[in-house]
Amino acid sequence: MSELRHDPLNRRWVIVAAERAPRPADFELVHEYRVGKKDCPFCPGREADTPHEIFGLREGGGHPNGPGWSVRVVPNRYPALAIEGQPDRRAAGPYDRMHGIGAHEVIVESPDHELALSDQPLPQLVRIASVWKGRINDLMRDTRFKYILLFKNHGSSAGATLEHAHTQIIAMPVTPRAVAIKLESSRSHHQLKERCLICDLIDFEIADGSRILFVTEHFVALCPYASRFPFEILLAPRGHLHDFGQMSDDLLPAFASALSEALRRLKLLLRNVGYNFVLHTAPNVHALPKRTGHFFSLQWDWHWHIEILPRLTRVAGFEWGTGFHINPTAPEEAARALRDVELGS
Amino acid sequence: MSELRHDPLNRRWVIVAAERAPRPADFELVHEYRVGKKDCPFCPGREADTPHEIFGLREGGGHPNGPGWSVRVVPNRYPALAIEGQPDRRAAGPYDRMHGIGAHEVIVESPDHELALSDQPLPQLVRIASVWKGRINDLMRDTRFKYILLFKNHGSSAGATLEHAHTQIIAMPVTPRAVAIKLESSRSHHQLKERCLICDLIDFEIADGSRILFVTEHFVALCPYASRFPFEILLAPRGHLHDFGQMSDDLLPAFASALSEALRRLKLLLRNVGYNFVLHTAPNVHALPKRTGHFFSLQWDWHWHIEILPRLTRVAGFEWGTGFHINPTAPEEAARALRDVELGS
Repeated sequence: MSELRHDPLNRRWVIVAAERAPRPADFELVHEYRVGKKDCPFCPGREADTPHEIFGLREGGGHPNGPGWSVRVVPNRYPALAIEGQPDRRAAGPYDRMHGIGAHEVIVESPDHELALSDQPLPQLVRIASVWKGRINDLMRDTRFKYILLFKNHGSSAGATLEHAHTQIIAMPVTPRAVAIKLESSRSHHQLKERCLICDLIDFEIADGSRILFVTEHFVALCPYASRFPFEILLAPRGHLHDFGQMSDDLLPAFASALSEALRRLKLLLRNVGYNFVLHTAPNVHALPKRTGHFFSLQWDWHWHIEILPRLTRVAGFEWGTGFHINPTAPEEAARALRDVELGS
Repeated sequence: MSELRHDPLNRRWVIVAAERAPRPADFELVHEYRVGKKDCPFCPGREADTPHEIFGLREGGGHPNGPGWSVRVVPNRYPALAIEGQPDRRAAGPYDRMHGIGAHEVIVESPDHELALSDQPLPQLVRIASVWKGRINDLMRDTRFKYILLFKNHGSSAGATLEHAHTQIIAMPVTPRAVAIKLESSRSHHQLKERCLICDLIDFEIADGSRILFVTEHFVALCPYASRFPFEILLAPRGHLHDFGQMSDDLLPAFASALSEALRRLKLLLRNVGYNFVLHTAPNVHALPKRTGHFFSLQWDWHWHIEILPRLTRVAGFEWGTGFHINPTAPEEAARALRDVELGS
């Protein structure tokens, strides 16, 4: 089992594999390993090549671990965190550690090996989003999991090793630092102003307009003012909602359509660039001690959003040493170029 | 001129280029551009191919911008920050911005195009370290610069675009977030215990031994307990010293020897792996308001150190979305493998 470790200097959790690690020689190069269609464990008919499925959407009927699914959820074959056991937090000298307890799932987005998320027809995107929602809600019931992260690596430059389109979920026993910082900012803002920070930022951006990609009735997509990466996109609901899993099913088509538009604009402008996306939904309220202020305030202190991070620039010593990024493309230029993309019909 | 931007949600500064950015088509791939010996602007005889030099170490005499140097410092031809002007901090709606004021220098480590930092003879390494020290001390006199970062990208996987061995310095008008977090941790620890946090961690590690690479009279190299990356190394002076620039010249040979040993162990074990290193010296005390507690406590609240970060794993959505890393190699295993390397004579 892996271990979670925390040091008091950097205040950062790291998952450290405790099993026999790859030998040094295995590390010589950044691997460019890619699984193509021939050996794809996510294609229909190869259901036995994955661990037993967690969920399968089979609107036309069929059996678990057999074909007939439109979206399928399986455990990751090489999970970063293990599902059984308790975290068992302990001190280790000046450090903190706990067992690497969590969940690591893969959502296969379609039976079609060739179809990227951006190219899925709208009804299929709605199915995918409803499965995301379902998995997040299910994992939130587990009070061991403080945070549920849904993310996607598209393209080898973004770290994808399997071609077949898929999303991943990692449920973890700690709130990661990037989320904790946003939560603290939002909480301070709300205490002071009794308004949501992200609602305020969205209102400002819509009024300003220069960094907006598009605004629909329910969603907004924009290039953040302090984007770390060229063509970085933030997608969020316009109305205040902390938890992706609590989005009404009525909103799913509008969400699917907005996500699709953002990804298609990116793909057409940057010729199928690799990207990561991460869904920052609220920390798991069920894992918070009840009766605390934090338990009750969470729904006002968070506003779910998706960060889409194209992989165009290489991150080097400066970024690793500082957490400080150099972005060669002003977000206003990125937004203009993305707005100007002709989507066709 | 570039612009520094800060958003209240992520509390992170980003340098955004304000000039004409590369066009979207230029971004199609992560560039693998490398300048080899034929066109190298850092080789002797090509001094006119760089901007006018800032400093040249010419123990045998010679003229600025001519040959005869052993270590040479020049402005970066494509600086991330510009040297002239004032930051002019302003609000921009809910955000913060300032002009991209700073310094961006390149230290050419040797006249020899082929020699990596790890392969420099000890006397040359002492020269390089003394130039690092000199440049940091010089830049610290400029009260516009809150932080001076020295860093190195070795190998294309680490983002180096020029083969000829060089280090970079970026002096910046803000303290970057990674440094601010460490400073806050160290400060809280010192307020509580009247001891340096890094001194305490080093003492614990030396007593424990399992993550130690080597300990000399004045320096220690170890794999941090919560390493983000496989074979990550921390190198620090054993005695408390906050500012690299205040290291006595008597210590330079011991420092050069320790840095060389750490890099050679890494190179031999991982066959010339790409790496980044960053020197975390203290924030610039001259840029702090005098008479504040922070001005007086800085020398107790910081302990300089170098992070060496081999580029073996690919960072993907999970890491970008959380600041949370998965390290497949336990630091104890990494330290054991690095200790076992036979260095030869």
